[in-house]
Amino acid sequence: MVLDKEAFSKFFEPDSVAVIGASSKRGKIGFEILKNIVEGGFKGEIYPVNPKAEEILGLKCYKSLNEINKEVDLAVIITPAPTVPGLVKKCSEKGVKAIIIISAGFSEVGNFRLEKELKKEIKEANVRVIGPNCAGLINTEKNFYPTMELRVGKGDISFVTQSGALGGAMLAWAESEGLGINKFVSYGNAVDVTETDVLEYLREDPYTKVIILYVEGVKNGRKFIETARKVSLKKPIVGFKGGLTEKGAEAVHSHTGSLAGKEKIYLVAFKQSGVILARDLYDLFDFSRVLSIYRCSEGDKIVILTNSGGPAVIATDKLTELGLNLPEPPPRIMDKLSFLPEHCSKGNPVDLTASGDPETYAKTLEALFSEDYYNAGLVICVPTYFLNSVEVAKKIIKVCKGIDKPLVTCFMSGKLVKDALPLLEENKIPNYPTPERAAKALWALVERGRFLKKVKSWSEPV
Amino acid sequence: MVLDKEAFSKFFEPDSVAVIGASSKRGKIGFEILKNIVEGGFKGEIYPVNPKAEEILGLKCYKSLNEINKEVDLAVIITPAPTVPGLVKKCSEKGVKAIIIISAGFSEVGNFRLEKELKKEIKEANVRVIGPNCAGLINTEKNFYPTMELRVGKGDISFVTQSGALGGAMLAWAESEGLGINKFVSYGNAVDVTETDVLEYLREDPYTKVIILYVEGVKNGRKFIETARKVSLKKPIVGFKGGLTEKGAEAVHSHTGSLAGKEKIYLVAFKQSGVILARDLYDLFDFSRVLSIYRCSEGDKIVILTNSGGPAVIATDKLTELGLNLPEPPPRIMDKLSFLPEHCSKGNPVDLTASGDPETYAKTLEALFSEDYYNAGLVICVPTYFLNSVEVAKKIIKVCKGIDKPLVTCFMSGKLVKDALPLLEENKIPNYPTPERAAKALWALVERGRFLKKVKSWSEPV
Repeated sequence: MVLDKEAFSKFFEPDSVAVIGASSKRGKIGFEILKNIVEGGFKGEIYPVNPKAEEILGLKCYKSLNEINKEVDLAVIITPAPTVPGLVKKCSEKGVKAIIIISAGFSEVGNFRLEKELKKEIKEANVRVIGPNCAGLINTEKNFYPTMELRVGKGDISFVTQSGALGGAMLAWAESEGLGINKFVSYGNAVDVTETDVLEYLREDPYTKVIILYVEGVKNGRKFIETARKVSLKKPIVGFKGGLTEKGAEAVHSHTGSLAGKEKIYLVAFKQSGVILARDLYDLFDFSRVLSIYRCSEGDKIVILTNSGGPAVIATDKLTELGLNLPEPPPRIMDKLSFLPEHCSKGNPVDLTASGDPETYAKTLEALFSEDYYNAGLVICVPTYFLNSVEVAKKIIKVCKGIDKPLVTCFMSGKLVKDALPLLEENKIPNYPTPERAAKALWALVERGRFLKKVKSWSEPV
Repeated sequence: MVLDKEAFSKFFEPDSVAVIGASSKRGKIGFEILKNIVEGGFKGEIYPVNPKAEEILGLKCYKSLNEINKEVDLAVIITPAPTVPGLVKKCSEKGVKAIIIISAGFSEVGNFRLEKELKKEIKEANVRVIGPNCAGLINTEKNFYPTMELRVGKGDISFVTQSGALGGAMLAWAESEGLGINKFVSYGNAVDVTETDVLEYLREDPYTKVIILYVEGVKNGRKFIETARKVSLKKPIVGFKGGLTEKGAEAVHSHTGSLAGKEKIYLVAFKQSGVILARDLYDLFDFSRVLSIYRCSEGDKIVILTNSGGPAVIATDKLTELGLNLPEPPPRIMDKLSFLPEHCSKGNPVDLTASGDPETYAKTLEALFSEDYYNAGLVICVPTYFLNSVEVAKKIIKVCKGIDKPLVTCFMSGKLVKDALPLLEENKIPNYPTPERAAKALWALVERGRFLKKVKSWSEPV
């Protein structure tokens, strides 16, 4: 099915929504979702549907969809699985164009018959369906939260996930890390709308800068690669593949009923389509954060500036392991570093040791990027009692404004960096708590740069 | 030099300490270290030595070591590098048995001549020396903090580090994660006391249950392996090797002047000596935490119990990647799981899906460990609005008391698990924020079990 823009806009910015299976009982999904829509601040009409209730959360409750005498753009279904195919039909008759089916109890629990019946209904109706067995969606732009998950804050990263629970856990985590989300889609069993459709929609979404994608298995590999590639040309996708190992793939099978393929196939597919592979859950946030701030790194020449040997060694190991380069400063830059005291190490990493006061950090950083040589930088700062991390952060922020290369930081000392972190955050310098996570974030920028360079050299039509 | 127990007790529990180079200026290392000793609550005598001050922090200040008319067990030196060899001689003349040299400016900045001179003085004197270029040490048992680092809380993990700054950053991190430390030693350039000596001391230390070791290069590989092995037989060492890559090894060289060897050599040495290899900084804490609670896992058969597919798939992938086994429940256990509803997945992972209420978690966990089959378990819980994570935690804690196999948890949802985490913590069930970190912690237990089994089968004398 071709992407139906109208239906998709009904999912994310409907004028009205019916919640079929709305409940008045706190703790029930049918209550929590309605509550999220109401309390989230949705501006459209909200119609709870429940034959046994008069009113929920101050809203008039309808006995059935037919009782609503107005147009309904979107229906959210939370009723028992066997009732769902019939409800899809009713929605279609009512003229609803988009349906989110939260209800579980289909192929994921072995009920293939019911899922087949559902698919048949959808095919006959003129609707688009997200789910079943999903956690719903979020559009923070419209304060629209038809989901049982947390209402996270606004940002420019959108999150597409096959596993609803994982999505929910990640949203909660995003919230505790202060990371904003733009749109969230849990697509569950994907009987109609697949990851490919959502990716296509997000490609055109002006509010989404970076896409996080968690997949366990895709239904149509060829289409996935084509679409992901088209999307990647416009904005980065950070992808995590659940079920990479054989045993993991078995777990996927019993979980979503979808077939997770062999590791290599997925890795090649991701690579070909420009999807940046996250190797663990931290990567998902770390990569998308850095890619929401910087477009890419145009090469793999990285310089490390530090005041502490150990963390710089760890970063060097990680960057090297990831195939990035840490060349020594070329002579012209080396000359500009001559102001540094004898005991500072002027290789790469440049180690200021105890001479790493805010002023020296700034001057060194300026020198390192005074020539068009390094593609990106990692600034490590381990504050001590005699080094004010806030002052270091201020200087780095200032210098950073004059450098058009991506810079990430690793301010590393718990309590001692507490006040520096919000400053870096505000000024859009991504900070990571360990040298390894900072190194991996730089890798993501380099990987993105490689992809963009490759497609440019092919002068591929976008 | 053979381990000199007396000198070592002077390092960690002296009756008196002289701080040579004590300063009255806030922010100076000589001030911060003195302040840490004083405010840390050290019960012995404290003698600040500084020719220009009368009194610092309410303590009488001495013009020189000789002016102190009492015995001095330990001296902490924080004066400029060139003065250090002479001071070592004076300490020896005064009868001081243990010296910590904080001062930098030796081999790490290319001043090999001065370091040689220092070594000569040490050899001629009858003292043991930690440093130079180090961050000092901590003994929380005695509230003794001769260091410029944070005063962390008491625990049963001790931390030995070649990089002082990394050590400091990790202490700060430990504090923010609520992880207690027993002893901390930053041994810097190791002109006398090496990682091997400290390991030997900690082997006999009744308060240390697990040792964290960060090394960049060891001076005597053979001795390191012998000692680490002897220590590992008694208590686990979790080791991190900085400078594993060639480029990283170069960075080490310019940083500590020590030679970091080839990756393979270190990995084999670690393996042979039973040191559990941490692959990133999270591992250091995650492994030592789980090993401070459980002795080991006696085999590699792991079972995952979850209420959410995605995280379980990720854990399965990671455990498989690490070479652990996830066999299906054998028939006798499977029979006991027959109470589970149809839609729950009874393989491995056992997925309770939405049926994962506290009671079902408990009954399933009991069934899984009712037979002597699985060696360890991972319980994943992604709470939703309709699942109270505190109740799940309580049930798990209760069941856990009747199981003599290690169990770790992954309660995953930010805000929603906030209240469950302290409960797990109090009851010594290690929780990890991601399925990957939980899986790696289990690997550490299995690895420890393998080592213990191997040495037992060799009936090695301990």
